[in-house]
Amino acid sequence: MKKIVNDPNKVVEEMLQGFVAAHPDDVKQLPGTTVIARKDAPVSNKVGLVSGGGSGHEPAHAGYVGEGMLDAAVAGEVFTSPTPDQVFEAIKAVDGGSGVFLVIKNYTGDVMNFEMAAEMAEAEGIKVQQVVVNDDVAVEDSSFTTGRRGIAGTIFVHKIAGAKAAQGASLDEVKAVADKVVANVRSIGMALTPCTVPAAGEPSFVLEEDEMEVGIGIHGEPGIERKKITSADDIATELTEKVLDDMNLTGGEEIAVMVNGLGATPEMELYIVNRKVNELLSDKGIKIYDSFVGEYMTSLEMAGCSVTLLKVDQELKKLLEADSKAPAFRR
Amino acid sequence: MKKIVNDPNKVVEEMLQGFVAAHPDDVKQLPGTTVIARKDAPVSNKVGLVSGGGSGHEPAHAGYVGEGMLDAAVAGEVFTSPTPDQVFEAIKAVDGGSGVFLVIKNYTGDVMNFEMAAEMAEAEGIKVQQVVVNDDVAVEDSSFTTGRRGIAGTIFVHKIAGAKAAQGASLDEVKAVADKVVANVRSIGMALTPCTVPAAGEPSFVLEEDEMEVGIGIHGEPGIERKKITSADDIATELTEKVLDDMNLTGGEEIAVMVNGLGATPEMELYIVNRKVNELLSDKGIKIYDSFVGEYMTSLEMAGCSVTLLKVDQELKKLLEADSKAPAFRR
Repeated sequence: MKKIVNDPNKVVEEMLQGFVAAHPDDVKQLPGTTVIARKDAPVSNKVGLVSGGGSGHEPAHAGYVGEGMLDAAVAGEVFTSPTPDQVFEAIKAVDGGSGVFLVIKNYTGDVMNFEMAAEMAEAEGIKVQQVVVNDDVAVEDSSFTTGRRGIAGTIFVHKIAGAKAAQGASLDEVKAVADKVVANVRSIGMALTPCTVPAAGEPSFVLEEDEMEVGIGIHGEPGIERKKITSADDIATELTEKVLDDMNLTGGEEIAVMVNGLGATPEMELYIVNRKVNELLSDKGIKIYDSFVGEYMTSLEMAGCSVTLLKVDQELKKLLEADSKAPAFRR
Repeated sequence: MKKIVNDPNKVVEEMLQGFVAAHPDDVKQLPGTTVIARKDAPVSNKVGLVSGGGSGHEPAHAGYVGEGMLDAAVAGEVFTSPTPDQVFEAIKAVDGGSGVFLVIKNYTGDVMNFEMAAEMAEAEGIKVQQVVVNDDVAVEDSSFTTGRRGIAGTIFVHKIAGAKAAQGASLDEVKAVADKVVANVRSIGMALTPCTVPAAGEPSFVLEEDEMEVGIGIHGEPGIERKKITSADDIATELTEKVLDDMNLTGGEEIAVMVNGLGATPEMELYIVNRKVNELLSDKGIKIYDSFVGEYMTSLEMAGCSVTLLKVDQELKKLLEADSKAPAFRR
């Protein structure tokens, strides 16, 4: 295991300290928790947005905390759901009187623990609503998940629901727009290499030198097919077609594209993939409204990428381009 | 070689196409060249800023093209200087009548080719000035370099000189502030793994499973020492101390910090390094003005990081925090 770490069991704690040290004017760590919140939280009369999940997906989720996006992010251990009490602390810290909205990626542990936290908060009189993101079209049911997994499409939910909340929308309105994003966003990923959870010390699976896996999850969960590495264009085509097959587009729609690196993929390769994704969509008469190429939802040092497509309308476009001061998504 | 590419000899061409496809409203590729320029270039009565170098360091340099930073970036082949004629095309494209300023990383090929391009431009009546960035304190003279190498500190030059030019400063004034940044910025890097140039197909050097190299260059040039991997805190301490040793700080200064990932290092690890850098500087009474943690100047999929410190005064602070619309450095 080649990593730049101290105690493998303290990586989350030390990462969060390093994150707050980098952004001291913008965020705070709630004492005794693994919650990163906006420094000015709670914001009065604004719906508070909370997301989070296992660590190892940086910049998700703390990188999306900031004006115009999340009010707080809860960090679990690496690839492990945060506990309900941690989520509960986040909810309490961001409730400015207008309720709190939870963005949950669809993993059984996350859903269970965020819902339990929501019940704890409601018992204290805080209104809570939520959305479960399930954008990964690769497989139904998987390790850790019933139904489809939530992956990089989650970032679009953070951005758009965050912008809606920043405009002063009600909890119901934030919920409605988040539901709209989830209904219109689809993703799929592929990997060239596995990754190693620091405390485990060994990769969780093995790919041969000439192999890749299509449809893999962001924790290395099994995908659709393990096969010989193909060209960037073939990879881009397979991912894009699989996403489009699930979207029922008829042409003329507008789409926001995200080509997301899983951690160790050079940006050069992501742009080579984006080139082909762009060509494929253009050939089908689909208009690209905006593109996001980079590392948004990673799997430690996994090499690979995912392609996310979001069908946008006027409302989603306005919210997507609204200002954001989150360190990992400045607009 | 596990990479997401098509023809290894076309990676730069395809990357640039994918880059323009992602940012079509903001940038353009000059026809028949590897130059990415602001879409609205040349900007009248503004000094034009040009940088560039070998590819493989993304988001450097095209990611820094945008209002408030570079007007154009010239991409060479992977780890290879761009030719003088390409740089010349960039200079001509961004000259808005106030002259053009070149930001050159100190590699023999880059310096020679950018200077030759400057001469070609001057022969056509375009005023050109330049700065050579040599922030890497690791070694004097190295493969490809006489004197110190230019690495991640270059991004601060782009940002600050770019902001100065955006304010309408003269070519002499842009040169003066760029010189000030170069005089006050120092960096050093380390690597856990090598990287593979696509057309070569094999890593350019080998590190054993328990080895790291301190002071390595962004093309894998030899560093100071190859040794057993140490802890994140020890790595952060060694890098920070080596940079500070070269800076003659007496305490009370303000510093901008950059903890830069070389390509395959999880953001988690960069923040763990930042935690220690922050602690070391605070212990010495050095005030951190701002921090930048992420991938700014990479070496394909090399695992490792660099630490850059920039001593800032009022002028540099204002310019560092000025607006930038460059995709890789939004402010």
